[in-house]
Amino acid sequence: MTLVVKVGGADGNAIAPVLDELAHRTDCVLVHGGSSEVDRLGEALGRPSEYYTSPSGVVSRRSDPAHLEVLVLALAGRVQTELVRGLLARGARAVGLSGVDGGLLRAKRKEGARAVIDGHVVRLHDDRSGSVEAVRAELLTVLLRSGYLPVVGPPAVTDAGEVVNVDADRAAARVAGALGAEALVLLTNVPGLLRDPDDPASRIPRIPRAEWETALAYAKGRMRKKLLAARDAVEAGVPRAVIGPSDRPDPVRKALDGEGTVIE
Amino acid sequence: MTLVVKVGGADGNAIAPVLDELAHRTDCVLVHGGSSEVDRLGEALGRPSEYYTSPSGVVSRRSDPAHLEVLVLALAGRVQTELVRGLLARGARAVGLSGVDGGLLRAKRKEGARAVIDGHVVRLHDDRSGSVEAVRAELLTVLLRSGYLPVVGPPAVTDAGEVVNVDADRAAARVAGALGAEALVLLTNVPGLLRDPDDPASRIPRIPRAEWETALAYAKGRMRKKLLAARDAVEAGVPRAVIGPSDRPDPVRKALDGEGTVIE
Repeated sequence: MTLVVKVGGADGNAIAPVLDELAHRTDCVLVHGGSSEVDRLGEALGRPSEYYTSPSGVVSRRSDPAHLEVLVLALAGRVQTELVRGLLARGARAVGLSGVDGGLLRAKRKEGARAVIDGHVVRLHDDRSGSVEAVRAELLTVLLRSGYLPVVGPPAVTDAGEVVNVDADRAAARVAGALGAEALVLLTNVPGLLRDPDDPASRIPRIPRAEWETALAYAKGRMRKKLLAARDAVEAGVPRAVIGPSDRPDPVRKALDGEGTVIE
Repeated sequence: MTLVVKVGGADGNAIAPVLDELAHRTDCVLVHGGSSEVDRLGEALGRPSEYYTSPSGVVSRRSDPAHLEVLVLALAGRVQTELVRGLLARGARAVGLSGVDGGLLRAKRKEGARAVIDGHVVRLHDDRSGSVEAVRAELLTVLLRSGYLPVVGPPAVTDAGEVVNVDADRAAARVAGALGAEALVLLTNVPGLLRDPDDPASRIPRIPRAEWETALAYAKGRMRKKLLAARDAVEAGVPRAVIGPSDRPDPVRKALDGEGTVIE
């Protein structure tokens, strides 16, 4: 059975233990983000990243055409090449794919994204972001069947052929659903969902369906998107999703053993 | 039989006619360069491209680590995404691969590249360029068999796992050889090899083996690398290589019909 593992892809996320482990697994897809690389390249190009807050309180990256260009360079160019190189060096036949390759991640562009600026709700007309609506899993199964390890990241592509930014956690959930994966493992820099963000010992080990809404109340910022991704995967038929840390040996196996927050 | 087509990938090369035509072919691999995109991004990042001349008179791009980073961003990030998007929009299931993906282009790093600077021969110690020694064609055949159109470009990877720049024309020749292609088509912005570079009517239509050395004398700069690539391909068993212009409808068919310079 296939496994989908998501990592941050850049600073603040320990990547080496993940690559060490995945190089010895078969039938696995690695999905990556890489926000800090996008930020760094944007600074170097004089186009620093901008973030906005939606009326419902979700913080998102600004993806106007100039910023989207930076994102494509950083993720499809630098982060993906570095992950593939790292896996190759460990003996895995990794192949990098953006969501544009083969139309892998089909997205719907966000219509009228809205931002709260100085207390006013403003429509963002030139936003090039979207959400993944469909995954053309055939490209992944062709590669998996031949012993390759697909490494997948944003951007995605719309039916109209536009390149758009998508959230990598939620894209990973879609990939897991489309492949009928046995599990989605979301690796990050915290031990899991914490009741108290300042207390690593306050990890919530398991979230059954009935306690979903309560758990979501604890989740702030990036963790909120991870929980939503975990729910997407479970609703798409993936038996379980686990959120766990990447900075320890065998982070995937440990997550699958329940050392993290398990959503089922 | 498989066909390998090489395009420049950026400014000064008409790409649209090539994409229009390839979207309706099967069993084809597109190889790209994109020097002008690398130059442009280097300028934007405050790391303008540098070129050097070897003692034998060949001009090459400087690929120290800082410049190689720009090349990876521009080619694997921007140029490849744009070509894949353009092919997708025309209905082709294109998949972008750098030479690092799956260890596709295995290169040997140039040992002690030498440059002539102010009349002195200087060794470039930190040069990250190489030449393709082997192509792992299996990844391409897996994709071709499943109806995908591989879009391949630099960088390549060494056995030691280093990312290096390689010449895209000569990489295309290696790909054609490894696939046992029926032909290598090198598309560019001139009608073929010209006896007089200022006279488009002076095209040399065909170069038989016996006239090889004479023909090479006419070739300057980029054209010289194209001729060497054409020879590489023919020596690797490809029945013929054609150098022709991309700025006309059906540039590939016309090149195969002999409207260019045919090397066989």
